Amino acid sequence: MQIKTKQDVRDMARGAAFLGVGGGGDPYVGQLMLQQEVLKGKFPNVIKAQELADDAKVLCVCGIGSPPVLVEHLLSSTMLSKLVDQMEAYLGYRIDALISAEIGGLNSVMTLGVAAQRNVPLIDADGMGRAFPQLEMVTFSVYGCPASPVMIVDELGNMARVHAQTDSVAEKMSRAISSSLGAMVYSALYTMTGKQVKECAVHDTLSLSYDIGRCIRESREQLDSPFEGLLALLNKPEENRHFRVLFDGKIVDLLHEIKDAWHFGTITMEANGDSNDVMVVEMQNEYLAARLNGKTVAIVPDLICILDAETAEPITGERLKYGQRVKVTGLSAAEILRRPECLEVFGPAAFGYEESFQTVEALNP
Amino acid sequence: MQIKTKQDVRDMARGAAFLGVGGGGDPYVGQLMLQQEVLKGKFPNVIKAQELADDAKVLCVCGIGSPPVLVEHLLSSTMLSKLVDQMEAYLGYRIDALISAEIGGLNSVMTLGVAAQRNVPLIDADGMGRAFPQLEMVTFSVYGCPASPVMIVDELGNMARVHAQTDSVAEKMSRAISSSLGAMVYSALYTMTGKQVKECAVHDTLSLSYDIGRCIRESREQLDSPFEGLLALLNKPEENRHFRVLFDGKIVDLLHEIKDAWHFGTITMEANGDSNDVMVVEMQNEYLAARLNGKTVAIVPDLICILDAETAEPITGERLKYGQRVKVTGLSAAEILRRPECLEVFGPAAFGYEESFQTVEALNP
Repeated sequence: MQIKTKQDVRDMARGAAFLGVGGGGDPYVGQLMLQQEVLKGKFPNVIKAQELADDAKVLCVCGIGSPPVLVEHLLSSTMLSKLVDQMEAYLGYRIDALISAEIGGLNSVMTLGVAAQRNVPLIDADGMGRAFPQLEMVTFSVYGCPASPVMIVDELGNMARVHAQTDSVAEKMSRAISSSLGAMVYSALYTMTGKQVKECAVHDTLSLSYDIGRCIRESREQLDSPFEGLLALLNKPEENRHFRVLFDGKIVDLLHEIKDAWHFGTITMEANGDSNDVMVVEMQNEYLAARLNGKTVAIVPDLICILDAETAEPITGERLKYGQRVKVTGLSAAEILRRPECLEVFGPAAFGYEESFQTVEALNP
Repeated sequence: MQIKTKQDVRDMARGAAFLGVGGGGDPYVGQLMLQQEVLKGKFPNVIKAQELADDAKVLCVCGIGSPPVLVEHLLSSTMLSKLVDQMEAYLGYRIDALISAEIGGLNSVMTLGVAAQRNVPLIDADGMGRAFPQLEMVTFSVYGCPASPVMIVDELGNMARVHAQTDSVAEKMSRAISSSLGAMVYSALYTMTGKQVKECAVHDTLSLSYDIGRCIRESREQLDSPFEGLLALLNKPEENRHFRVLFDGKIVDLLHEIKDAWHFGTITMEANGDSNDVMVVEMQNEYLAARLNGKTVAIVPDLICILDAETAEPITGERLKYGQRVKVTGLSAAEILRRPECLEVFGPAAFGYEESFQTVEALNP
């Protein structure tokens, strides 16, 4: 994977929006930042986790805030590099590589931009394999890497450093700071070793994101429908990866609610033609559950994506519109996300659902 | 002033409750902490600001949170000393003296406890001369000493350090962290020099607090009414200090509202006997304005205190009860608090009132 042209950047951002499953922050502002570096000839150096020494020093960078705010809030190109400087000064060492907290949405594209700017490698992996609304919902945390110290900055020069006893308290404190500063701040956190990254990250997700973004663009040009291309790329039972088009219809009702700095929503769709099928997707920043005529057809942590019915452009939650013609798709989550210890942290129960997790391939044989 | 006995501690706490003007946090938990030190023979060493070298290193300690929460939340005796340790480690020097952010309520008694525990002098002064609900509402801030860095801890070992570009942003960030940790945290902030303290603190307020607390106790025993004693102590026009008993009656209506982590309230009282006089006091953590039959008789930053009608025990906002017989009193604020630059930060307009500040002595000749 090489990110050397504007088209590469756009492909990566499109894939990140797909894996963002409605949330994660619109990748657009991160795309602009990465594009600026690429146009200057500064290309991100993406490496595999296996290339890291076991004692390599790795740092995670991510935005913390409310996706609808982010869309109106351009990203300072120097702030993030200063953030890493401050964290290195506090830690007392230089880091060897960066990693994204979440591949979905803004955070991966933005971290690619920081990596390019600082000329420090970025690992082809992340902590979610998608997007989740809380900072402790990463495999890093599940497998014992603490989030703290969390260094937080905003673009006005305000700064905070948080040391919390648990990652969920780190989330509460960081979220509160974000709210107090206008609901969008940037953080450096989850200092890890190369060994920890190899053992507990979700691997090859930057490549996957890029492949998805490129596939959608190329299939639009070369195939009848971009969904044909996505099926060929993503539905590979032999690799234990399953992709389904769950619904084809239009949005007939949209409910958005900003509560406790989250973006909650319910999207109701009716099928095209004579069918009476109704699809309802529920979201908390990200799409969490898809129900066809009341029956669950996909549920978190499996990936639910709402795409433009014609172009397969992924649509983030805040950009959904009444009357939009869309397809709802389901993609199996990476194997690591389906382990019991991970489901405890970001499975259905973590979002208040009483039902157990069932895989998208079992629900849609 | 010497604080060597349980009675001294109680006098100090009673005076702090008076100067807390309804808020500042109930001094009781701080009283317990100070008492514990005093009973061990560790007495606080209170010094005058003039005794400080100009380059002396001074640090402010205060609680940040919601007074009603504080009452149910005991104070760890070691946490505050650890907080000062952490701040000294960060600053890279030992401090020469402590100062209270606010004399009113918990913060002065608590800081006396820390000073006794660490055997470091406490300055007979503070930044408010009363209590105010926000951390930038101190003379230190008005006269250019920045609040940041703000070191914040809770008793579970969670920690944050805040560097804000303005003191009102420091307030917002610290308040948000406090809310995320259960609405009561403790902070070290406003690092100052001896020269700055001499120039911009409200002086002799620990002595005043102690004198008020002792006066109330002694007048109960020696005079017909403790209010006689308070009048003799506090109404000294020749020293430009004015004290008025504004109302005598009982509480007939109480409205409490916890909003944005503040404690708002409206207290309505009817006069005793045949009078139809009605007194209304409005509060935001502290009592802000007193209106007799709709006419303002005292307003922030002058001090409004609601006292038990018989014992003159000061009553904090969360302990007010329907039917309570009370007296409402007004005390002129320290001269420094009435300067135009101070009124901008904590005068009537800062609390949303459109009326200008008028002194309690002008309103009640």
